[in-house]
Amino acid sequence: MAALILDGKALAMSREAELSIAVEELIRSGAKVPVLATILVGGDPASATYVQMKQNACRRVGMESVKVAMPESTTTEELLAQIDLLNKDPQVCGILLQHPVPEQIDERTCFDAIAIEKDVDGVTTKGFGLMSMQEQAFGSATPAGIMTLLAHYKVALSGKHAVVVGRSPILGKPMAAMLLNADATVTICHSRTQNLAELVAQADIVIGAVGKPELIKAEWIKDGAIVVDAGYHPGGIGDIDKTGLDSRVAALTPVPGGVGPMTINALISQTLDSARKDMS
Amino acid sequence: MAALILDGKALAMSREAELSIAVEELIRSGAKVPVLATILVGGDPASATYVQMKQNACRRVGMESVKVAMPESTTTEELLAQIDLLNKDPQVCGILLQHPVPEQIDERTCFDAIAIEKDVDGVTTKGFGLMSMQEQAFGSATPAGIMTLLAHYKVALSGKHAVVVGRSPILGKPMAAMLLNADATVTICHSRTQNLAELVAQADIVIGAVGKPELIKAEWIKDGAIVVDAGYHPGGIGDIDKTGLDSRVAALTPVPGGVGPMTINALISQTLDSARKDMS
Repeated sequence: MAALILDGKALAMSREAELSIAVEELIRSGAKVPVLATILVGGDPASATYVQMKQNACRRVGMESVKVAMPESTTTEELLAQIDLLNKDPQVCGILLQHPVPEQIDERTCFDAIAIEKDVDGVTTKGFGLMSMQEQAFGSATPAGIMTLLAHYKVALSGKHAVVVGRSPILGKPMAAMLLNADATVTICHSRTQNLAELVAQADIVIGAVGKPELIKAEWIKDGAIVVDAGYHPGGIGDIDKTGLDSRVAALTPVPGGVGPMTINALISQTLDSARKDMS
Repeated sequence: MAALILDGKALAMSREAELSIAVEELIRSGAKVPVLATILVGGDPASATYVQMKQNACRRVGMESVKVAMPESTTTEELLAQIDLLNKDPQVCGILLQHPVPEQIDERTCFDAIAIEKDVDGVTTKGFGLMSMQEQAFGSATPAGIMTLLAHYKVALSGKHAVVVGRSPILGKPMAAMLLNADATVTICHSRTQNLAELVAQADIVIGAVGKPELIKAEWIKDGAIVVDAGYHPGGIGDIDKTGLDSRVAALTPVPGGVGPMTINALISQTLDSARKDMS
């Protein structure tokens, strides 16, 4: 039997339709049009594309987006001053600082300067701590989108062994925390892991979150597994080699069209949540 | 060959000797005597004993400790008011709120009300988030003590498979984060885990952090493993059944005299760190 395709693109589209209605209702109830502020530092073309896609998604559901473009030479202090302005702007209900920033900038300090109630991309350490302890907080967008995708397809997580390959602050670590909160048994692997193949082979759910093209080999993955690939590399290649998986795993995300659209969807969904809180 | 005993009691004593000297030097340099405030809510005898042990340790190294005892009927608001007073008290450089509090109290809200710079027991979500992202923060005392114990005995962690059994906010979750930050591959198991025996059997390092007497069976643990038992139950029983382990694992913590003394040591060591920061 062919694997179930975890179609993030289709789910994001249907969720956008619902979000559009919800945004319309919010505005009809007297709220201002919700605004997401995006900050792009420097000229990386991939980052520019991602920011543009996020802005487009905002507009498709009837929210506005304000674009702040800062030069490659921006200092930490300049970026902090910009974030502070957006924190204080009552029209802005969400702030996205596109990762990565140029290396002279202290990214952690800048992420953590984002007001927690506007951290709709889920990048602050405070938000991570709250989410990890199952308290109210916006989750990091990519793992939050993955959780929505898994929930939509009714993928059982409780008691299952999830193996997360990667431990970045905005992907692997929050992914592990969310899966643990959903009662999965979680293993976190990374560049120092000595027996990656053996660990991946045990996974009921494998998450590719390492940012290296096809580092995870198809032959490691067991029959019947759930395969989620959060990687995206030139040529539509993910972190997971999918050779032959289609005929033997239970479900998998396509690349592109799997995790990527759900990341953007989580961001705009959380922006709406933030706007709703402003009203309440 | 007999297993190496990870002697937390001995290490805590030798570290206390060093802390005494450091406290003396700090005071000689013009600082006030560092003060740890302890809050005990209700009359649980075990909790009262733990608080007393922490106060005694403070005094042994030349620091002071102020004891706040609140009745069993204390409300969240009353506890928050008390924490606020201690946050504002310039003489207090550390605050310990003994866990658990009576059930009518919102423990998370109270933990998170502790000022981050006085959170020497490492219980705030903010501190957890910072620590998880390898930023400066006081770690949760028990896992921080365990990391010190492992470092003292030069237990290699990088690339090793650590299996943490338990996922509580102040033990299992921060333990997993600290081991991950030390480049271990980390698996977190808990009450919903379906194949606990099989996972524990893979552990190079097994951490009993589940709070159930001898839930982890000796026969599951592989030869040559490092065995750390953070449990303590009446009769000197831990979370790990140690039958026969002494002759086949590489190292293990005794119960009592292993993790317990290191927890207290981490607390007083971090209280001194906080006092030093006040001076700088």
